[in-house]
Amino acid sequence: MCGTDGTNGASAANGTNAANQGAQFRSSPYQPVGDFLSNVNKFKIIESTLREGEQFANAYFDTETKIKIAKALDEFGVDYIELTSPAASEQSRKDCEAICKLGLKAKILTHVRCDMRDAKLAVETGVDGLDVVIGTSSFLREHSHGKDMAYIEKTAIEVIEYIKSKGLEVRFSSEDSFRSDLVDLLSLYRAVDKVGVNRVGIADTVGCASPRQVYDLVRTLRGVVSCDIETHFHDDTGCSIANAYCALEAGATHIDTSVLGIGERNGITPLGGLLARMVVSAPDYVKGKYKLHMLKEIEDMVAEAVEVNTPFNNPITGFCAFTHKAGIHAKAILNNPSTYEILNPADFGLTRYVHFASRLTGWNAVKTRVGQLGLVMTDDQVKEVTAKIKAMADVRPIAIDDADSIIRSFHLTLHEQPPAGAQVPVEVVQ
Amino acid sequence: MCGTDGTNGASAANGTNAANQGAQFRSSPYQPVGDFLSNVNKFKIIESTLREGEQFANAYFDTETKIKIAKALDEFGVDYIELTSPAASEQSRKDCEAICKLGLKAKILTHVRCDMRDAKLAVETGVDGLDVVIGTSSFLREHSHGKDMAYIEKTAIEVIEYIKSKGLEVRFSSEDSFRSDLVDLLSLYRAVDKVGVNRVGIADTVGCASPRQVYDLVRTLRGVVSCDIETHFHDDTGCSIANAYCALEAGATHIDTSVLGIGERNGITPLGGLLARMVVSAPDYVKGKYKLHMLKEIEDMVAEAVEVNTPFNNPITGFCAFTHKAGIHAKAILNNPSTYEILNPADFGLTRYVHFASRLTGWNAVKTRVGQLGLVMTDDQVKEVTAKIKAMADVRPIAIDDADSIIRSFHLTLHEQPPAGAQVPVEVVQ
Repeated sequence: MCGTDGTNGASAANGTNAANQGAQFRSSPYQPVGDFLSNVNKFKIIESTLREGEQFANAYFDTETKIKIAKALDEFGVDYIELTSPAASEQSRKDCEAICKLGLKAKILTHVRCDMRDAKLAVETGVDGLDVVIGTSSFLREHSHGKDMAYIEKTAIEVIEYIKSKGLEVRFSSEDSFRSDLVDLLSLYRAVDKVGVNRVGIADTVGCASPRQVYDLVRTLRGVVSCDIETHFHDDTGCSIANAYCALEAGATHIDTSVLGIGERNGITPLGGLLARMVVSAPDYVKGKYKLHMLKEIEDMVAEAVEVNTPFNNPITGFCAFTHKAGIHAKAILNNPSTYEILNPADFGLTRYVHFASRLTGWNAVKTRVGQLGLVMTDDQVKEVTAKIKAMADVRPIAIDDADSIIRSFHLTLHEQPPAGAQVPVEVVQ
Repeated sequence: MCGTDGTNGASAANGTNAANQGAQFRSSPYQPVGDFLSNVNKFKIIESTLREGEQFANAYFDTETKIKIAKALDEFGVDYIELTSPAASEQSRKDCEAICKLGLKAKILTHVRCDMRDAKLAVETGVDGLDVVIGTSSFLREHSHGKDMAYIEKTAIEVIEYIKSKGLEVRFSSEDSFRSDLVDLLSLYRAVDKVGVNRVGIADTVGCASPRQVYDLVRTLRGVVSCDIETHFHDDTGCSIANAYCALEAGATHIDTSVLGIGERNGITPLGGLLARMVVSAPDYVKGKYKLHMLKEIEDMVAEAVEVNTPFNNPITGFCAFTHKAGIHAKAILNNPSTYEILNPADFGLTRYVHFASRLTGWNAVKTRVGQLGLVMTDDQVKEVTAKIKAMADVRPIAIDDADSIIRSFHLTLHEQPPAGAQVPVEVVQ
């Protein structure tokens, strides 16, 4: 079925049943050929709510809030938690130390400029690793730090070797990778790969990249370096989830996220949105690794801390993500939720709702509601009361209790004895 | 630069300056090879706020609201406006007639099931065309309408020929195309193409498709039919904008959108988000065709009508889409906004804001603020007051006026005569 794309090669490598995969392909034969580079079912998350997220306009996290968020993310199951550079401020440094002392399962990273002073300060906080960053695009070289590629490479190697000498993990990333010179970028990354960097990073700092561009760049890089590949996507043009997915298809190993996507401007790949994409494509891996039922609680915690509302259209946790309204949809959903749902709300501790109180309703939705109310009607009677509901909903918006009251009044007008062929109450749809 | 991908072939075909494109490629050499199938710079929008959007949980549009939205979308420049089927309710039919009588530049479509009764009712409302839909996936055939492919093809041809006999435009679309049998789908679309359908539609009804899957399916279909290709993407897994973009790269001609993406569950490709993506890739086409400065007003109108807030992280119009906070970002933005912005807020009648009142601030951002306040300081003095601002922001969240008051107090402690080498106020950054 839709969503197993790109994973069959990897699944076979992991020893799962290739025959089952084949059966899925037969039942819905339109599938891309499996990609041996794909890490769609074995990716890692670097959760950056406490770094990128702190760059969100509304974000101010005090120590207590940082600790609460770090603990929740750790319990949720993220692999890494990234923190603001200790060079940003004295409190940032102290918070970094405090979170390192919590003894979390997740590895603790901090994000520093490619500068020996910042690296030394970071190493002393007790973190497990450093995410080192420098701008390599001509835009940034001209308007931000003004350094040339030879200088960048020399500094990068010094900083990386220092961090490795301290026994810590190190990632080296460009900023604005999609506006950097490809040859410069590959040359720099090959050099840092040779000195043993753990990961190189591809960052779409301005949110300009498109999915096939991401696939091509990561695939090219995959052939040049042997280390892991981390990716970071801003959402200015609405592609941050799709770009992360295509990066994994091309062989990236790590994805940066933040809760609700908070970050500079309109932010980065959101944790929940990424998992909505990944649970469709790699259900066993995602459900086995992450405590998905904690997602809503974590999003609510962060939304409250930065004083925003969860977007109405948020994947999974938006208030209407599992609400079905049109009659044609409602009918099919009542027969089999998979017809109009690729995500199962129960996986996230959430429930489905079939909206029947509107002019777009159909008699199948109303029939289910009749059953939920414990009433008994023939199909013809349900169709009659459906017409009444639609007529009223044409005049003004109606609520569930309006519709229920139409159903109950109509039911009262019927014979007390149910006629032959009447339906017994059907199973209640959650 | 990033964002011209896929358009150079098409630009050349349209007679624009291929040499200029070449220059852009040289300045940032990482670019995918241009794709001759691409419609990235000549796509059309089918705006479905008044159809798909009416299926949003909170949507109830009275006639007056529908007319207001239709007029605004028409002025904005969308090619088509799609309305709820007149078969949905009596008021839906009347509203359809009323909007057809407005004499808008946009073509008016209505969206009907593949059924002769629905088609006849629709033709009588005065619409310019019909978007005909039927489910072709095994899920829908089993759990929704229960019809086989031979029956679907026969009915489709009857309905299409009837609509064409009335001189109207007709689109034929499957629902849930990505879970349909590829051979069935291509066979059906080739048959309707032969009888002269104007467009066939690819619909990701459940939101399961991924970008490269979309590219592959649309590219395959592009080789089978000669008519236009319309695409419709739900956002359950957060890929609706990226999928629309990849569809255009593969040769799709029309994209369905709704304002803020409202629709069933968490909705479809949002109008604003799609244009954020497209204005980066095809700036001349998008800026020439759409009144982008109306976007915020239209989104506000629809948000109010369906009683939601614009998501905090909405592309373009989210409250922080053009807010820059980290010191490293602020410095570069002040030198050249293109360093950290791929979208220009002025294109949408909006303004940029550089956040300087936080512990992540840098002295370049503070220096600009000093200039905005009409004060004069040396760089060393600016660095000194920046340290004070960061120290206060470490203790609690601070507002702009808090930071301003620190700057003013500090300024008062300085000599009245500006020292040698002091900066004159710099240009005010919007």
